[in-house]
Amino acid sequence: MDTYNHILLAVDFSGATETLLQRTVALRQFCGADLSLVHVIEPMVVDPSYDVFPAIPLGLEQEAAGKAQRELIRLGDRLAVPADHCHVMLGSTKSEILRCAKDCMADLIIVGSHGRHGVALLLGSTANAVLHGAPCDVLAVRIK
Amino acid sequence: MDTYNHILLAVDFSGATETLLQRTVALRQFCGADLSLVHVIEPMVVDPSYDVFPAIPLGLEQEAAGKAQRELIRLGDRLAVPADHCHVMLGSTKSEILRCAKDCMADLIIVGSHGRHGVALLLGSTANAVLHGAPCDVLAVRIK
Repeated sequence: MDTYNHILLAVDFSGATETLLQRTVALRQFCGADLSLVHVIEPMVVDPSYDVFPAIPLGLEQEAAGKAQRELIRLGDRLAVPADHCHVMLGSTKSEILRCAKDCMADLIIVGSHGRHGVALLLGSTANAVLHGAPCDVLAVRIK
Repeated sequence: MDTYNHILLAVDFSGATETLLQRTVALRQFCGADLSLVHVIEPMVVDPSYDVFPAIPLGLEQEAAGKAQRELIRLGDRLAVPADHCHVMLGSTKSEILRCAKDCMADLIIVGSHGRHGVALLLGSTANAVLHGAPCDVLAVRIK
């Protein structure tokens, strides 16, 4: 059967991600696929008025990354994902998810999708670009 | 296991949809889900210069719909989808896919995605809107 070999799950530690995890676990089991996790920290964000401001206090990016790495590894433990498959990236959500997908040769990216604005709210305005730029399949899981 | 009950596959009869069909069949089998098919005919299209022109000769929409219905039913036969689960819609791709998903209470919409522009090329500029407007999960399958 033609299924997936390597699934990349993009997580953001916001609440209500149980649906996302359940779907991922079910699909991974079905496919017998490897699973990697990615969490992206955007040091700079753009608000709706196009102002650019730091999302984390300047100089504390590495501290934030370390904290996220520990959280991601905890999640990895729960999902039986080894630590070297848990990636915390600093940069643009879109570019880093796509880079990570390429590096681990993922053939499926799973992202969460909130309410009426779909994926946009979860992953910022770049989620759309993830969907369009992806070199592989993308599953957007609606989080209720 | 938390999987899908009703999958809606959006098809456009362009070549190279075998990957799309294989993924759909595999997922449907795994989930034990119902499957519906939808094909949308856009009577009017907008080209990149924002000119609006008819995609099919005026007055021939019903003929085009009949032809598409026969093709869709043939595909349905192949996939063991009953004729009353094969929907040909006239209108905007986005609205009609979402309407169809709502009507059949789909919890997963599967669409094809071409090359570097992702889903945009397959379903026109409205694919993005399908992804963002969907009341359920969306799987964009990359067609090589």
